[in-house]
Amino acid sequence: MKVSIIAIGDELLLGNVVDTNTPFMASLIDANGWQPVHSCQVHDDPCDILFAIKEAFRRADIVLTTGGLGPTKDDITKQVLCEYFGGKLIHDATVAANVERIFAERGLPMNALTASQAMVPDCCTVIPNATGTAPVMWFEKGGKVLVSMPGVPREMRYTFTREVLPRMIAMSSNPDIPTLHRYFLLEGISESAVDTLLNNDSITPILREIHKAYLPQPGYLKIRLDSTDPEFLEKAASEFERLMSEYIFAREDIKPAEALIDVLRASSMTVATAESCTGGNIAHMITSIAGSSAVYNGSVVSYSNSMKINTLGVKAEMITHHGAVSPEVAAAMAEGAARVAGTQCAVSTSGIAGPGGATPGKPVGTVCIAVKTPAGTHSDTYHFTGNRAEIIERASVKALIMLLRSLE
Amino acid sequence: MKVSIIAIGDELLLGNVVDTNTPFMASLIDANGWQPVHSCQVHDDPCDILFAIKEAFRRADIVLTTGGLGPTKDDITKQVLCEYFGGKLIHDATVAANVERIFAERGLPMNALTASQAMVPDCCTVIPNATGTAPVMWFEKGGKVLVSMPGVPREMRYTFTREVLPRMIAMSSNPDIPTLHRYFLLEGISESAVDTLLNNDSITPILREIHKAYLPQPGYLKIRLDSTDPEFLEKAASEFERLMSEYIFAREDIKPAEALIDVLRASSMTVATAESCTGGNIAHMITSIAGSSAVYNGSVVSYSNSMKINTLGVKAEMITHHGAVSPEVAAAMAEGAARVAGTQCAVSTSGIAGPGGATPGKPVGTVCIAVKTPAGTHSDTYHFTGNRAEIIERASVKALIMLLRSLE
Repeated sequence: MKVSIIAIGDELLLGNVVDTNTPFMASLIDANGWQPVHSCQVHDDPCDILFAIKEAFRRADIVLTTGGLGPTKDDITKQVLCEYFGGKLIHDATVAANVERIFAERGLPMNALTASQAMVPDCCTVIPNATGTAPVMWFEKGGKVLVSMPGVPREMRYTFTREVLPRMIAMSSNPDIPTLHRYFLLEGISESAVDTLLNNDSITPILREIHKAYLPQPGYLKIRLDSTDPEFLEKAASEFERLMSEYIFAREDIKPAEALIDVLRASSMTVATAESCTGGNIAHMITSIAGSSAVYNGSVVSYSNSMKINTLGVKAEMITHHGAVSPEVAAAMAEGAARVAGTQCAVSTSGIAGPGGATPGKPVGTVCIAVKTPAGTHSDTYHFTGNRAEIIERASVKALIMLLRSLE
Repeated sequence: MKVSIIAIGDELLLGNVVDTNTPFMASLIDANGWQPVHSCQVHDDPCDILFAIKEAFRRADIVLTTGGLGPTKDDITKQVLCEYFGGKLIHDATVAANVERIFAERGLPMNALTASQAMVPDCCTVIPNATGTAPVMWFEKGGKVLVSMPGVPREMRYTFTREVLPRMIAMSSNPDIPTLHRYFLLEGISESAVDTLLNNDSITPILREIHKAYLPQPGYLKIRLDSTDPEFLEKAASEFERLMSEYIFAREDIKPAEALIDVLRASSMTVATAESCTGGNIAHMITSIAGSSAVYNGSVVSYSNSMKINTLGVKAEMITHHGAVSPEVAAAMAEGAARVAGTQCAVSTSGIAGPGGATPGKPVGTVCIAVKTPAGTHSDTYHFTGNRAEIIERASVKALIMLLRSLE
């Protein structure tokens, strides 16, 4: 079953908003063994939307659209769908009741605009949207389907997974053979070096033959192996693991923070963080994972030297002598964090995220990272490239992987 | 000048990677007064790429493509471009030298695959890529242009802004009239309520007539006013500001953290944060802004009660009596953070981000936020909806806006 995705909204084409709806749906389409064949972003313009729908149906059996359904005037998707599928807008009492319920819950007064959300094409099946006011609409024509969903990511995710996916599964009577995937996360090796190794004549043909996808992430490399044959995939995965063992730090499609939490949980250890240049991003990465509180006690974001001294117990003379950005201060920060938070492990960063702050011998991108485990404390100095956000991201990922490897 | 964008890569259509390249380019295209007319994502498949290029040229004068240029075998864009523009791949000595330089800098050995990056179509102008090994290629045909850029976001951003944009500006000899924008950030009012107010018959026609875009963000509403007439735009903006003053918390297209930093800087005050459920995200939002160190001293991420007690000086009896998630504990955390960090202001959060952790009377999404300023400390309890990431995001934004408003 081939699926095409259309995201509607001027904001997507003006670059105000990143379209995260499309990859969310695409990953679930792929997981169900269907093919996401194409995706596009179009303006809130009747001609553009109509043209995109026609093109999408040339490629796909199912067309999923998001956006263009809000109460304000720039949303004209419903009129276009009436034109394409041959219908007119009528009042839907169930949708109206849902809009009223949501406004009452939020303590907001109803107005004529929000009431207009209850107008829906008479040529579709209306699917309830428990999370918002814009309805989900299911259209069928010539054996093909179009589903129109709201553009608000939270509403799209909820209605797509709860309402639309089950209906798509029910309609795909001849189940497609799903493509199975295995994921590996690697650090310390480039994409091309991996590919060269995998295509070397001396290795087993299975690794040359299997379909591979290289997915570079900030600070590490994600690799996906694909096959419709479970046995072939498992063989390739175990060959891959044997060949790449020194670079692999995780064997699932997870975040580095999740991999670290798994290791800490397995060894019944707890961790704290002390962050200077990463400014809370490591703490945010760890606490974004549900259940992290079982292994994570907290962080001191010591953006000022006085925080390093007063809260983490770093000696003022050490900062004067070595500078705040030094392996010595990073090590003292990690040990201070473990002491303050009462944990066995800690990781710390001190560096220059830029664009200002460079000093002679310490350019922007210089970051000292220290790791404390029951086995001891060690620190290293790294030089990351990129803008401020990229340096923060890479240093944070490096810190997580450094601690993970110290525990293996 | 109309511009169409094609992002190439299986990973984009399988949902492994969010396409941030397209909105980055789109916002700069719009800023230059050109029209981003369409964008799409296609597989690493010769037919799909060729079809997308043909379609894009029907809509646009310039087609920008990203991705499909890496050293590994899944990248076939260069061959497709040879086919479309009528050329063949030849060895380019300048590109080869660049690849060698980059590998030497990274201390990696060259291999046959990376050497293949020096093969480029003989029917294009090769533009150097200082940040990576894949070259940028500029093709012309029948008065129209296609530019092929790497898909790695850092390389695309650098080469697009430094190399491609200046050439696009040079070729647009008849400058288009740029659309000018004014941005406002609002909190405490819904999209439809704003639209109803702006279309009320009693208000000035200028606000009904001007083109408006509603851009809901997690926790606030961004509104953009558009016009090609600077005078009309300024009149509309000042009318808008008058009408919406009680909801507006910023008058530029900036992040809430940036707006807060501007206010703190203007009043020569400093801030610290104490975070429980937001887990370092507020610190990360603040420290993501360059120059934040002038007003921000640091944070205590007190994920455990012992961190709240030992580091922030919250009384253990208070936690026992009121619970960690209480306005009282949040207030004590904010005051503790200001004391520890030596700041005039502080903001704190204590809540339940979920999915676990709910207690009777305190469902997932309950978050207490406290703000401390020289005028005193106050705290409130909020109920946010959504998944863990959304609750963390909304609580963080609410905390920043709460402090911002306390300082106005």
